[in-house]
Amino acid sequence: MKDRKLLMIPGPVEFTPEVLRAMGMPTTSHVAPNFIEAFGQALERLRDVFLCPNGQPFVLAGSGSLAMDMAAANLVEPGDRALVVNTGYFGDRFAAILERYGAEVTQVRAAAIGDEPDLAAVEAALKADRFKVMTITHVDTSTAVGASVQALAALGQRYGALVVVDGVCSVAGEEMRQEDWGIDLALTASQKAIGVPPGLALVVAGPRAMDAYRQRRSPVLNYYADWAQWLPIMEAYEGRRPGYYGTPPVNLIWALNVSLGQILEEGMKARCRRHRRLSDALKAGIAALGMSQVPVSPDRTATTLTAPYYPDDVDAGVLQKIGEAGVILAGGLHPEIKARYFRIGHMGAVTPSDILTTLGAIEQGLAQAGYKFRLGAGLAAAQEVLG
Amino acid sequence: MKDRKLLMIPGPVEFTPEVLRAMGMPTTSHVAPNFIEAFGQALERLRDVFLCPNGQPFVLAGSGSLAMDMAAANLVEPGDRALVVNTGYFGDRFAAILERYGAEVTQVRAAAIGDEPDLAAVEAALKADRFKVMTITHVDTSTAVGASVQALAALGQRYGALVVVDGVCSVAGEEMRQEDWGIDLALTASQKAIGVPPGLALVVAGPRAMDAYRQRRSPVLNYYADWAQWLPIMEAYEGRRPGYYGTPPVNLIWALNVSLGQILEEGMKARCRRHRRLSDALKAGIAALGMSQVPVSPDRTATTLTAPYYPDDVDAGVLQKIGEAGVILAGGLHPEIKARYFRIGHMGAVTPSDILTTLGAIEQGLAQAGYKFRLGAGLAAAQEVLG
Repeated sequence: MKDRKLLMIPGPVEFTPEVLRAMGMPTTSHVAPNFIEAFGQALERLRDVFLCPNGQPFVLAGSGSLAMDMAAANLVEPGDRALVVNTGYFGDRFAAILERYGAEVTQVRAAAIGDEPDLAAVEAALKADRFKVMTITHVDTSTAVGASVQALAALGQRYGALVVVDGVCSVAGEEMRQEDWGIDLALTASQKAIGVPPGLALVVAGPRAMDAYRQRRSPVLNYYADWAQWLPIMEAYEGRRPGYYGTPPVNLIWALNVSLGQILEEGMKARCRRHRRLSDALKAGIAALGMSQVPVSPDRTATTLTAPYYPDDVDAGVLQKIGEAGVILAGGLHPEIKARYFRIGHMGAVTPSDILTTLGAIEQGLAQAGYKFRLGAGLAAAQEVLG
Repeated sequence: MKDRKLLMIPGPVEFTPEVLRAMGMPTTSHVAPNFIEAFGQALERLRDVFLCPNGQPFVLAGSGSLAMDMAAANLVEPGDRALVVNTGYFGDRFAAILERYGAEVTQVRAAAIGDEPDLAAVEAALKADRFKVMTITHVDTSTAVGASVQALAALGQRYGALVVVDGVCSVAGEEMRQEDWGIDLALTASQKAIGVPPGLALVVAGPRAMDAYRQRRSPVLNYYADWAQWLPIMEAYEGRRPGYYGTPPVNLIWALNVSLGQILEEGMKARCRRHRRLSDALKAGIAALGMSQVPVSPDRTATTLTAPYYPDDVDAGVLQKIGEAGVILAGGLHPEIKARYFRIGHMGAVTPSDILTTLGAIEQGLAQAGYKFRLGAGLAAAQEVLG
C-alpha cells in the first residue's frame, strides 16, 4: 500500500508533479537566457494572478512574513498612522511589524474570535484619524476568517489610506481583484494557493504604493527588504535583461513560473469557483459530523481553509489518528482557543478526491477517538455538494 | 550529444544528484517528524561545517545579503562604530548595510584592486578607535581575493571588536575554523560551496555575538531578520520539537541537510585540500594560457574562485564562445575593472574533470576569439598539478 500521506494543512499544500520537477531541475545560472525568460514570465504572470495590470511585482527569497515586512518597511515612516483590521494572529503580527518601523498603530478588532470587525467600526476609526496605511488579513490562517476585503478596501480608499492586503492564505484561491478593488499592495507566500514549495515572498505593489515609497522623506529602515535594491532587478528581468543584487532562488522561481502558468491555464474565475465548491463540500461534511467552526457564520468563512472545533470529549490527539488514516491536518494556532480546534487547508492543486480522502480520514480518526456519529455521514454530505 | 552546459560561476554551482532529488521531493509539513529531524540535523551539522561547536546556527529563506543584513541588524545599534576590511564589491555592500542600521563605518582598503589591506593598516585603525564590529569578506566574489582571515580575526579580537566574516564564497570550500580563529559570526548562502540551490541564508553566531545581541539597549531595526523571531525556532528544531514563526523552506532545508551530510562525509580537511588542489590546477592552466589574474599574488587568491584578466585583444565576447564550447562562466563584477576580467567558480561538488572541461572550453573560446597560444597548454599545465 502506498504510504504517502495527503498534506491538507494551510501550507505547504500538495504541489503538482510539474512544480516538483522544476524544483529538482539542475540549477542554472541566474543570468542564463532560459532563467531570465522564466523569471520575466513569472513577473508578468503575477500581475495576471493578482489581477493588477498596473502593479509592480516583487519576488524574493523569504517567507510570507518577509512580504509583510517589505510592505511595512517600504510604506511606513516613523510617526505615520496605521490601521490594522484584526481578524486573528496575523493581524497581531502586522501590527507588531508596523510598530517596528515607527508606525502608530490603531487596531479594530472583531467582537469575537471568528468574526470580523463591523464595517461601521472600521469606518469610524478611519474618520477619527488620518491613516497612511490600512492592513487587512484576507484569510487569517489562525481562524479561517475570510475578511470582506472588497468592502474594507473601498472604505480605506474613501478615507485616503493605502490599502494593504495580507493575501498569504488567499491569493490564487479566494477571489481577490487587486486593482478593481482598490488594493494598493497585496502579498502572499509561495507555499499556499500559489502552489510552490515554501521559500518565496511575493508582493504586488500598485501605483499609489509605489508613489508613496518614492515620496518617502526618510530611508527605509530595513536594508534587505528595501525596494531600492529590488526594483531595478525586477525591472531588468521583466525586460528580459539580467540584473544582480542577490542571487535569485533559481529553482523556486522556475517552480513559480510553472505553477503560475497552470493557475492561468485554469483561469482565475474557474480557480476561485473550484476552491469555493471544494470548500462548500468539506464544510458540509464537517457540519454533518456535528462539528461547529471557528468562523461565526458561513459568510465569514474562507474558501481556502476550514477550522472546525473538536467535538465534545475529543482533543488534539485525534489529529494523530487522522494522520494514521492518511491525512495530515494542522492544530490550532490562535493562542486563546489553540487547544479547542484544528485546521484543514484546501487550496492550490486540491481535488474533489482530496476532500473525500480528508473527510474519510477525519471520520476514521473521530471513530477511533470514541466520538459517536453515523460513519459516512460526512462523506455523504460532501458528495451531495460535489454532485 | 548531451547539451547540458557545465556551470562554473561563483554560485549557483553544480549540485549533486542527491541534493537535487531532495529539492524535488513532495513537500511535507514543516512540523512533520521527518522534517523536524532533517532540520535539527542540519543545524547540528552546520556547527561542524563552520567548526564552531559553541555557535548558534540560523537557517532561513533569503539570499546571502539577508545573512549580511541579519549580522548587521542584530549586532549594531545606532552610533556603534564598525570597521570594514574592504577587498571589493562585497566590502562596499557590508559598509552600506552597517550604515543603514546606524553604524559609523570606517573602511580600510587595499592599495590596489586585487590586494588586501596591510595588516598594519588594519591594526592602526583598530588602535585609533573603539570598534564594536569588524567585518572581513573571506573571499570577495568580485575579485577572487582571499583575505587573511585568521590574522585579521586575531587582530579584531585583540582590540575587542566582534569579528564578522562574510563567508559567502568560502564556507565549506576555503579553510575557516570559526571558533579557533576567534570569528564571532560567520555567514554564507546556500548556492556556493555549501552546495544547495539558492534561497537559504546561513549564519552561525558565536557566544560573544549572542551576548552582544542580548545586551542591546535598542530594538533591532529590521523585523524579519531579528533573532528574537528565529532563535526560539532554531532551538526548537534542534531539540527535535516543532516551532512556528514563518514556514521554513522545507525542500531547501532537506537539500541542505543532504549536502551537509555529504560535506562532513568527505571531511572538512579533505574538502579544503580538494578545493586547493583543483584551484591550483585551474590557476596553473590559466597562467599557462598567458592570462594574469585580479589577485595580485598567489597568497591573495581564493581557492573557490579564479578571476583572470582577458588577454590583449580579447573581450567579454569570449564568454559566449566558451559557453558554446559547453561551460558557463561569469563576467566581471567589480565596477572599476568590470569589462577587463571574468570569473570562474570552482567550489562544492567540483571535480578534476570539471577543471579540465573548463580549461578545454576556455582554450576553444580563446582560439575562436583569435587569441594566439599553444592549444592544450592550459590543459597540460593543469594535468601536471592534478598528476
